[in-house]
Amino acid sequence: MPNPITENRRHFEDLTVGEAFALGPVKVSKTDIVAFASEFDPFPFHLDEKAAKKSLLGGLAASGWQTGALSLKMLVDALLSKIASMGGLGFTDLKWKRPLMKGDTLSGTATITSLRRSKSHADMGILTIAFDMRNQKGEQVMTLNLANLVEVRDPSAPLDAEAPQ
Amino acid sequence: MPNPITENRRHFEDLTVGEAFALGPVKVSKTDIVAFASEFDPFPFHLDEKAAKKSLLGGLAASGWQTGALSLKMLVDALLSKIASMGGLGFTDLKWKRPLMKGDTLSGTATITSLRRSKSHADMGILTIAFDMRNQKGEQVMTLNLANLVEVRDPSAPLDAEAPQ
Repeated sequence: MPNPITENRRHFEDLTVGEAFALGPVKVSKTDIVAFASEFDPFPFHLDEKAAKKSLLGGLAASGWQTGALSLKMLVDALLSKIASMGGLGFTDLKWKRPLMKGDTLSGTATITSLRRSKSHADMGILTIAFDMRNQKGEQVMTLNLANLVEVRDPSAPLDAEAPQ
Repeated sequence: MPNPITENRRHFEDLTVGEAFALGPVKVSKTDIVAFASEFDPFPFHLDEKAAKKSLLGGLAASGWQTGALSLKMLVDALLSKIASMGGLGFTDLKWKRPLMKGDTLSGTATITSLRRSKSHADMGILTIAFDMRNQKGEQVMTLNLANLVEVRDPSAPLDAEAPQ
């Protein structure tokens, strides 16, 4: 039975390895940094400018988890809200390369790196997406690889029918 | 020069592979789920109970990133705020095993899985921590392996001097 929310969106069959999506930009303020860190990552280098200057980060910097959540939101806007997404499976190799400092602008690129049908659930496909997140100077801030489920439009199609690549 | 914030905390030398820390518990409400998802992961299955019931998740469930951020906060409370932490490096193999549903209680265990001195920075050690997060039924919700920097008390000690294991 077609899902009324997602039936008109792009499905597994409509996606292509190598497709890339622009993420952001989003500027990150001191208020944003302190609000997130107070709730989830309450370290002096995410909360207090003076303590932050003395830390390894050299100034007030966003929690790495905030950089991750902001990047996720950008991917929702750029891609996940436009496809028949069924939710995330997890990710590998998240690396914080450089802190995202107060006043920095985060943007990036998400690229589809693989597409495969689930062997156990004919109606599901698995999409992997590589994130390359940078600051306003073009310096890399974070990389990660996300695995996400997406609906297959025609579950009766044989499993070895790959999407066009 | 000793760091006044962290000098009395446990340092790299004081940590042991196999040490385990209890995380949580934290109960997750509908309000918590909707607030986080509205900001970072605005999908119907994280925002609307009716849409969530029809989704793969079978009911209103927290964003996987919220589960991650909540687990991080638990690790700060249980360990990171008590050691000379210098910040996170990233993580590998985050897996969302099962959704965290409205009204569920999240708790878990964090175990130190490795400790090694940085080769390039004598004052830094790298700590890896495995998370095993579960709901109130004991069912596994999320696993991940985090790498975190911690201060070395005596950077002049030879690099092959491992912490007691």
